[in-house]
Amino acid sequence: MTVPITYEHIKTCKQTGARLGRVHTPHGTFETPMFMPVGTMATVKTMSPEDLKAMDAQIILSNTYHLWLRPGQDIVEEAGGLHTFMNWDKPILTDSGGFQVFSLSDLRKIEEEGVHFRNHLSGEKLFLSPEKAMQIQHSLGSDIMMAFDECPPYPADYSYMRQSVERTSRWAERCLTEHHQSGKSSIQGLFGIIQGGEYEELRKQSAKDLTSLDFPGYAVGGLSVGEPKDVMNRVLEFTTPLMPADKPRYLMGVGSPDSLIDGVIRGIDMFDCVLPTRIARNGTCMTSEGRLVVRNAKFARDFRPLDENCDCHVCRTYSRAYIRHLIKCEETFGFRLTTYHNLYFLLQLMKKVRQAIMEDRLQDFRDEFFESYGFNKENAKNF
Amino acid sequence: MTVPITYEHIKTCKQTGARLGRVHTPHGTFETPMFMPVGTMATVKTMSPEDLKAMDAQIILSNTYHLWLRPGQDIVEEAGGLHTFMNWDKPILTDSGGFQVFSLSDLRKIEEEGVHFRNHLSGEKLFLSPEKAMQIQHSLGSDIMMAFDECPPYPADYSYMRQSVERTSRWAERCLTEHHQSGKSSIQGLFGIIQGGEYEELRKQSAKDLTSLDFPGYAVGGLSVGEPKDVMNRVLEFTTPLMPADKPRYLMGVGSPDSLIDGVIRGIDMFDCVLPTRIARNGTCMTSEGRLVVRNAKFARDFRPLDENCDCHVCRTYSRAYIRHLIKCEETFGFRLTTYHNLYFLLQLMKKVRQAIMEDRLQDFRDEFFESYGFNKENAKNF
Ligand SMILES: [Zn+2]
Ligand SMILES: [Zn+2]
Repeated sequence: MTVPITYEHIKTCKQTGARLGRVHTPHGTFETPMFMPVGTMATVKTMSPEDLKAMDAQIILSNTYHLWLRPGQDIVEEAGGLHTFMNWDKPILTDSGGFQVFSLSDLRKIEEEGVHFRNHLSGEKLFLSPEKAMQIQHSLGSDIMMAFDECPPYPADYSYMRQSVERTSRWAERCLTEHHQSGKSSIQGLFGIIQGGEYEELRKQSAKDLTSLDFPGYAVGGLSVGEPKDVMNRVLEFTTPLMPADKPRYLMGVGSPDSLIDGVIRGIDMFDCVLPTRIARNGTCMTSEGRLVVRNAKFARDFRPLDENCDCHVCRTYSRAYIRHLIKCEETFGFRLTTYHNLYFLLQLMKKVRQAIMEDRLQDFRDEFFESYGFNKENAKNF
Repeated sequence: MTVPITYEHIKTCKQTGARLGRVHTPHGTFETPMFMPVGTMATVKTMSPEDLKAMDAQIILSNTYHLWLRPGQDIVEEAGGLHTFMNWDKPILTDSGGFQVFSLSDLRKIEEEGVHFRNHLSGEKLFLSPEKAMQIQHSLGSDIMMAFDECPPYPADYSYMRQSVERTSRWAERCLTEHHQSGKSSIQGLFGIIQGGEYEELRKQSAKDLTSLDFPGYAVGGLSVGEPKDVMNRVLEFTTPLMPADKPRYLMGVGSPDSLIDGVIRGIDMFDCVLPTRIARNGTCMTSEGRLVVRNAKFARDFRPLDENCDCHVCRTYSRAYIRHLIKCEETFGFRLTTYHNLYFLLQLMKKVRQAIMEDRLQDFRDEFFESYGFNKENAKNF
């Protein structure tokens, strides 16, 4: 059988053990380590596909839960799938909908069969199961699908987490069965998700269960849910060694520059997060010299670019004063400009990370980057 | 002295008397008849300058009143003027701020010296005079500036309108004096505005007063303020013959497809209106077969383009179903797509109008266009 998703390992950083590679998908190849912009509603908010290509986005993520509710996966399927619907011909990863069910919906009730909950928009009663999550993602036609898992909050006690991990393993098996019976398993790849919170023993159990099912890639779930950074790093340190070296490793929900670098150093290949796009719409930018809140009054007459060290179209063309003006007036174009820059910034960061791995100097790069961004300062902001 | 704005007449349509020409400005030439997209806040809402160039926008309009309040004309001037501030290197026309003072602000008090009113955002007391309106536009650095006029509502009684027209003429003279003393009159051109409502005698008086001042172009103001279409057409019929044939003629605030064509037939060269961009943000599109409200449920599974006869990037790439989905989700990108299409539609309409003038068949073109758009139907919508 054709495996739709394969990982090509290029090099391991001698200084850190970070991996440089490529992931091949039915819609082309992307380099790793890679950050994936999030296009929740079949659009990366404010961006066109041309914008995304201009910034060298190589893969985007879209949300199963949201597309299930609007416009409905049947409409996307009738359009010819998500790639055609939104005019994006490069790889797409879809999540399983599980995270949104657990974070957005009210009155959810978890049973062995799946989750009962209410639509967060209409209040309508809905049910999501491993099989249903696969069926929706098959309709969407993403290159990389995610297994339906439970993502417990942080902190969760050990006994609950153990039950949850066991259920997630049983659900993963059902996802795989549904996927193989769909006839889509040669054109869409399904990744498993390792859970277990901060508990090493449970992460081990989850990794053992999941890897026995032979998915073409694995995610670390249940992180970036409110735990301190050192907890995330510690969990990665004992989890990534449990993941197959010949398959891509995806850390879900991480997008702050420091965590991206620290994740790569711990063996992660793929990341996604709404952070760069969400803060952009609030007038906050990531720059080589740290966080810049361009909507602040002090930038009213600042005619420098957002980031003097950035060569993106926005920084080559527009001033802080103009962008601040647009954002103060709630002009969409302002949010386009900050969104473009923030995504470009993270994609460039990953490019520099890949280059540093190639040169066996990722730890040095981390130290330089943290210093100039300000992560080494007291009271450093998270992003 | 160099005249910054000149009109080059190319041809008169034998069938209608409509004019084909070109207007030369310090930032290049635009063809006439021409529609000018409106960029109120130094941005055509949702569009980038690249988008505007891709659709062949040749001149845009921006609003003095709004830029005076935010970010302030001093900031725009410090940026190097509006062209640099917003990255638009083609011609810009700015209005005088008068229309907004009369339409948006509360508690206005008109005196000979100018108008006292309250900032519609903050309630702060402000004063706008002919001199101040010139000074702001000098700071903005637009290619075409507009004289500060009073734009009375429709209907207004004859005696009020007569007083208003006389004041507008006195204000026009003060504008011209201020403009000539500024040192900017060789790099920015000032247009006069003919007022007089629906009264032929007052339009004659206004035209006589204004043309005696020898502006490099003239606008017809006080139309598209709620009067029926036949009143607008009748006023144009007796007003445009009073305007110099060797200078551009601008009909302010008109953007519905029927009125554009009917204006051109009555000798108008330039138009502006927020209509195409405003309705786009409500999910309404102009198409070759009439008005299309793409947010309607009936388009949920309609995978055709917005307009099957349109070759714009949006119509070549995206379906009604996708655009409807985006707009239902209030996704900015949906408004980008409808805005782009609507502006492209009007710019293409003007291109077809220019071609029809060239071929002496503008009346035939009007008949065909009105038929296919649906303007000949009973209960035809205005746009
Ligand atoms: Zn930048
Ligand atoms: Zn179109």
